[in-house]
Amino acid sequence: MIAKTPQTPYYAVIFTSYRTEGENGYAEMANRMLELAAQQEGYLGCESARDEIGITVSYWKDLESIKAWKENVEHVIAQKAGRDILYKSFKTRIAKVERDYEFFK
Amino acid sequence: MIAKTPQTPYYAVIFTSYRTEGENGYAEMANRMLELAAQQEGYLGCESARDEIGITVSYWKDLESIKAWKENVEHVIAQKAGRDILYKSFKTRIAKVERDYEFFK
Repeated sequence: MIAKTPQTPYYAVIFTSYRTEGENGYAEMANRMLELAAQQEGYLGCESARDEIGITVSYWKDLESIKAWKENVEHVIAQKAGRDILYKSFKTRIAKVERDYEFFK
Repeated sequence: MIAKTPQTPYYAVIFTSYRTEGENGYAEMANRMLELAAQQEGYLGCESARDEIGITVSYWKDLESIKAWKENVEHVIAQKAGRDILYKSFKTRIAKVERDYEFFK
């Protein structure tokens, strides 16, 4: 679903990744992180798609809420699993959404 | 491929979409737009994935280069095809990337 974000400005965390071979508990971890993120203060929504490359964009109220999510204890453990087991490579970009527009048929 | 973007700050255009049913010349149009975008002044790279939802993030030097790309004549025609034929819905977000970090095994 296209995230129903509020009026700009707000923040986006663009997470682009390549997974390692095999399942390695990936789906369970990914679902748990989505569930946990959605409970955080300042969380505004998330969009995710994967072909070979995966792109997950989560939306946040401000930099403080992104920082708090990054430091969430369960998320810190997941980040370690990400580096050790789940991902071959990734890039995280923190961006301030200045303008947006949409189209619905 | 994870886009090899320069040091921050730079800009991201996050394009999230749902396609209509059928091919409708989508692949040809999408490939041509990637090719054309890559020739624009200020283009820095692109990442794209689709499950049910599609996410394409293109990276740009500044707002001027995004504006010029939006107004590119061939791109304007493609945008019209997007609204008329190719997409059920989409959202475009223009965001300033303030910080990034990466991980490679």
